[in-house]
Amino acid sequence: MRMTPRGTAPLTAAVAGASGYAGGELLRLLLQHPRFRVGALTAASSAGSTLGEHQPHLPALADRVLRPTTPDVLAGHDVVFLALPHGASAEVAAALGEDVVVVDCGADHRLTDAGAWAEFYGGTHAGSWPYGLPELPRADGTRQREALKGAGRIAVPGCYPTGVSLALAPGFAAGLLQHDDVVVVAASGTSGAGKAPKPHLLGAEVMGAMSPYGVGGVHRHTPEIEQNLTAAAGAAVRVSFTPTLAPMPRGILATSTARLAAGVDPAAVRAAWVEAYAGEPFVHVLPEGRWPSTAAVLGSNAVQLQVAVDVRAGRVVVVSAVDNLTKGTAGGAVQSVNLALGLDEGLGLSAAGVAP
Amino acid sequence: MRMTPRGTAPLTAAVAGASGYAGGELLRLLLQHPRFRVGALTAASSAGSTLGEHQPHLPALADRVLRPTTPDVLAGHDVVFLALPHGASAEVAAALGEDVVVVDCGADHRLTDAGAWAEFYGGTHAGSWPYGLPELPRADGTRQREALKGAGRIAVPGCYPTGVSLALAPGFAAGLLQHDDVVVVAASGTSGAGKAPKPHLLGAEVMGAMSPYGVGGVHRHTPEIEQNLTAAAGAAVRVSFTPTLAPMPRGILATSTARLAAGVDPAAVRAAWVEAYAGEPFVHVLPEGRWPSTAAVLGSNAVQLQVAVDVRAGRVVVVSAVDNLTKGTAGGAVQSVNLALGLDEGLGLSAAGVAP
Amino acid sequence: MRMTPRGTAPLTAAVAGASGYAGGELLRLLLQHPRFRVGALTAASSAGSTLGEHQPHLPALADRVLRPTTPDVLAGHDVVFLALPHGASAEVAAALGEDVVVVDCGADHRLTDAGAWAEFYGGTHAGSWPYGLPELPRADGTRQREALKGAGRIAVPGCYPTGVSLALAPGFAAGLLQHDDVVVVAASGTSGAGKAPKPHLLGAEVMGAMSPYGVGGVHRHTPEIEQNLTAAAGAAVRVSFTPTLAPMPRGILATSTARLAAGVDPAAVRAAWVEAYAGEPFVHVLPEGRWPSTAAVLGSNAVQLQVAVDVRAGRVVVVSAVDNLTKGTAGGAVQSVNLALGLDEGLGLSAAGVAP
Amino acid sequence: MRMTPRGTAPLTAAVAGASGYAGGELLRLLLQHPRFRVGALTAASSAGSTLGEHQPHLPALADRVLRPTTPDVLAGHDVVFLALPHGASAEVAAALGEDVVVVDCGADHRLTDAGAWAEFYGGTHAGSWPYGLPELPRADGTRQREALKGAGRIAVPGCYPTGVSLALAPGFAAGLLQHDDVVVVAASGTSGAGKAPKPHLLGAEVMGAMSPYGVGGVHRHTPEIEQNLTAAAGAAVRVSFTPTLAPMPRGILATSTARLAAGVDPAAVRAAWVEAYAGEPFVHVLPEGRWPSTAAVLGSNAVQLQVAVDVRAGRVVVVSAVDNLTKGTAGGAVQSVNLALGLDEGLGLSAAGVAP
Repeated sequence: MRMTPRGTAPLTAAVAGASGYAGGELLRLLLQHPRFRVGALTAASSAGSTLGEHQPHLPALADRVLRPTTPDVLAGHDVVFLALPHGASAEVAAALGEDVVVVDCGADHRLTDAGAWAEFYGGTHAGSWPYGLPELPRADGTRQREALKGAGRIAVPGCYPTGVSLALAPGFAAGLLQHDDVVVVAASGTSGAGKAPKPHLLGAEVMGAMSPYGVGGVHRHTPEIEQNLTAAAGAAVRVSFTPTLAPMPRGILATSTARLAAGVDPAAVRAAWVEAYAGEPFVHVLPEGRWPSTAAVLGSNAVQLQVAVDVRAGRVVVVSAVDNLTKGTAGGAVQSVNLALGLDEGLGLSAAGVAP
Repeated sequence: MRMTPRGTAPLTAAVAGASGYAGGELLRLLLQHPRFRVGALTAASSAGSTLGEHQPHLPALADRVLRPTTPDVLAGHDVVFLALPHGASAEVAAALGEDVVVVDCGADHRLTDAGAWAEFYGGTHAGSWPYGLPELPRADGTRQREALKGAGRIAVPGCYPTGVSLALAPGFAAGLLQHDDVVVVAASGTSGAGKAPKPHLLGAEVMGAMSPYGVGGVHRHTPEIEQNLTAAAGAAVRVSFTPTLAPMPRGILATSTARLAAGVDPAAVRAAWVEAYAGEPFVHVLPEGRWPSTAAVLGSNAVQLQVAVDVRAGRVVVVSAVDNLTKGTAGGAVQSVNLALGLDEGLGLSAAGVAP
Repeated sequence: MRMTPRGTAPLTAAVAGASGYAGGELLRLLLQHPRFRVGALTAASSAGSTLGEHQPHLPALADRVLRPTTPDVLAGHDVVFLALPHGASAEVAAALGEDVVVVDCGADHRLTDAGAWAEFYGGTHAGSWPYGLPELPRADGTRQREALKGAGRIAVPGCYPTGVSLALAPGFAAGLLQHDDVVVVAASGTSGAGKAPKPHLLGAEVMGAMSPYGVGGVHRHTPEIEQNLTAAAGAAVRVSFTPTLAPMPRGILATSTARLAAGVDPAAVRAAWVEAYAGEPFVHVLPEGRWPSTAAVLGSNAVQLQVAVDVRAGRVVVVSAVDNLTKGTAGGAVQSVNLALGLDEGLGLSAAGVAP
Repeated sequence: MRMTPRGTAPLTAAVAGASGYAGGELLRLLLQHPRFRVGALTAASSAGSTLGEHQPHLPALADRVLRPTTPDVLAGHDVVFLALPHGASAEVAAALGEDVVVVDCGADHRLTDAGAWAEFYGGTHAGSWPYGLPELPRADGTRQREALKGAGRIAVPGCYPTGVSLALAPGFAAGLLQHDDVVVVAASGTSGAGKAPKPHLLGAEVMGAMSPYGVGGVHRHTPEIEQNLTAAAGAAVRVSFTPTLAPMPRGILATSTARLAAGVDPAAVRAAWVEAYAGEPFVHVLPEGRWPSTAAVLGSNAVQLQVAVDVRAGRVVVVSAVDNLTKGTAGGAVQSVNLALGLDEGLGLSAAGVAP
């Protein structure tokens, strides 16, 4: 049984996949976290090189040598963050004891439905772990954070599901939205596509370019969004989701719309979101007349939301902005680990963006 | 009665609002048009300065002095392009004879419904002119270009309505889509917001930023989109439209979705779009597996489209890319003028984008 | 006489000019500084509005109301940061007692030569304050930080002089460079041009655009760079400086070159820089074969440097990257205040950039 | 002996390397050229695929199948454009008859000095062809275009040498500049680095990033710049050249400085540039007070120049903007071919940029 850390001794954290974008952001956050000390850094093909060759923005760790991603290297830390391709984390986690908190930043342990896993990812379903989106409202009136307190395994949400689920869940939890007519269109910065070089991700291609991908409901984040909204609604929610790539390094702007349930007073809609997030340090419903911007949350753990009712079309439109690498991945991971370890939930995290 | 030009003598074109973005793009296209000679250039507060101070990319006209926007200055040209704030064009047009083709790049003459004008723009409705979107399918099986042949007045479509209407109209014309559940989310380059300097449009603010505006069905292009789709469907269509600003100078990427009508075979959907645009030189339904990109249509008069069916959600998703200043404004204007004058419809226009 | 603070009680900081880019960055850093509490925020024309309207990335201060920039409002804080247009700070500082540390982020107190002030800025010279570039080598072998310990008034360096002076000073201090043939070309993100909206700073204008300004030695940072390099060399240094605007929100990349002094062994050059900054936490001479990038220092207080010798041309070429708002303004200010107050020099500052 | 084409029959052009950035730009220009018909398109590893998979912005050629780059495929065209890696063009050219105009967009035939080739490129020097920079002033008072009239082989200049050589040559030709103290710093859009995917060229890496490469005089364009300036000066010119990558797809902004020769009146300097380019349709010395911008020449064959004298530093500073793919590669190629074929030099080319 894992023990809550006592006192102020440093906790050690290993990062597997330290040469990628998620790994780099995890390390940036761990460096500014008052309780963590960065332990082993591992990689696949980059093992043997120094971190400075891959993450030139992290001078404090520039000389660290990347080691291979093996259980031996990762063992003996208080927390192990896995930023690996999907399919790789279950085996690693199994080899680490229950006294290690294992945080999977990949997709393997997010979905509870093995059928959805098979349909969207294929291969064997690794099972599900407590889902690392603390603020998510659930149909029973509780929040997802309850499931994270003391957890030894954490499934970090996908970047799109973070922004979209927080955008719509309050309306579903409050019974304001129809369940079968949700449309989401989201734009992501290109770091969301990872660091493996591909021609269509070259700077010359993406600057000045907006383009879609995964159109027609085939993006793997679709069942994850539906799972979260279903948990909020207490009944099955179906989503049409279209992701696009935007000419920026980071950030997700999601426009999430659902049809108003019958009899709902449009004037009463906004209050459900304001109330849902009134006490949340990282989820901000903006004052009326102000709009979320990815620039305002760059490098921060904050989510910006705004809610509007399109009375003519009978739809609620919620726009949300998150940093796909921070709140959408590494920040959400650290926040969930804080909960798992009994630390202050926001420790080492900032709600301030780096702007302009 | 206006006469179709004969022979190959140059036609003269005046541009009112030559210092702005639409005016600059009109001039760029007119310079490469084999039949036009650029005549008077006018401006409001910039009258008296040279064009070179405002449009440094047009060296051929750098020394031209901008004159005030008055009927006297604009009279005597074969074509007058108006790139003015809304509300300003009716009076100018009235003072120009019927022998002058007047092309309104602003909004004044787009809407046929005075009530929609009053609701979204306010003030007196100036009436409607033939709408300059030649490829738009109409419910009776004809195209909008029929209304432009020989026209003496042309209302150039808005940039969003160009991309969105062409995206969805084939489905409505073919009876494949439900009329009351259309959701559109579109991203525009910041030139769409014009050249008047405002803090939120500064480069330091918009680079790295995606943000929405006009959320909740309030954007003025909403009734124009509905008008076009209603013309295609032969029955009232209602749209939820959310525009966003993207970190790029030009381009619109629109994701337009509608619910499949009952009994439609998903496998038969794509063919409707392929057939609708089979003979169109500027509207291209991409091969399956390829996706529109604003970068591919930069500076071109082309529209790129792709169609997908989200069977799980029961929706058709069409993604379209246009250059808001070219096909979305100045290119559409020139194309319509070509039709009005009996010239080859594509004269002086290119379907090739400037990429990467 | 100002007392060094004892214990861990919070120190209060006021920021004048809180609605601008420098003010926003100061606040972002103060929020993460363990010893500071943000006090009064002031503005000129924006007084009366909330900070959230101007700095949407700082939710912790969103509801703070901006007050007018008067000595009354600013008095009673431990530190007052002035982010004001040049010419405005002397009067404010005079009205604040000697027990208040006043930090001028503007230009007023940087130059020691009244003639240079008159030539480049005009008007009355306000005199000079201790210059806030702690790492700057001086000809006598000391560093500039000595002048900052216990200081009650601090002149924060300009953004370009920060990057350029640190790039070349080690070579001058070591006697490796000729004094009369220095050429610097630097590219800055557009936040360096401030937040006042001007047409040429619109996003649509600056994205995709590199352009120069202040060509021919007229930029106001020229005498400041010369002053710093002269201090390092112990003799007058003359610089040809050309600034350019780059399509990014933040960051300066400076290419600084000088002719090798007679008899210097090219193989010995690099060591002078390595030695000069060996113990500096924020100035990093990169390993050979790696190059500075503005992306790697985004939001950080770090300076990245690389040194090369062009043997054919007989010149040393030093390339440096800084964030113009962080190390180039607000981070340099906080670092200097830490020295002035006897705190750890790097307190509240990070050398990690936000990348990618 | 090659014959000048008579009448208006189409000329056929083949493009080898059609899947790359230079190849795509050549095709864009050929499509708008009134005398050319696009013939064979070839590629290396992409042979067998359609052009539409590589150049989505060229719908007119989308279905063309790429063929292997062999003399058989390329033979029988009036003009063959080679956009190949260096080292590949000599053999292809040798296999094509003298009746074919062969245009090498690569580096193989630019340098006249075999020693410089060996030092900067290595391997066997292929010899030199007439250099395709028509406007370049030469020390004897003529222009480079004389060497291109009727040429059967053309070496297209590098992108940097185009911008830099035109910037400084008038001063050298007029005897205003010292020969041994030239410093050039230039920023290029990332298309200049080509289309092969590499991690440091990913969009997430380059957006927001300025970084140098090839520092210390090692960039391969250095001897080419020196060759051109030496031709203008009539004596050896030595250059310190530093290239940087800027966050934009296209464009080069070069800041080129040289020390004023003894006794030159600064007030007389600018006139030398104005006179040198007075009759040139594509090289524009801007009015005083206006500055070149890469955005203003996007997709155009124009060069924008401005000249300033830094009297304090004793240097002339010339800033120039070109599109690296148009005037810097494909546009310069077409312009030179026009000269070679006896066509109007500017046929099919535009001096108008696509802006904003």
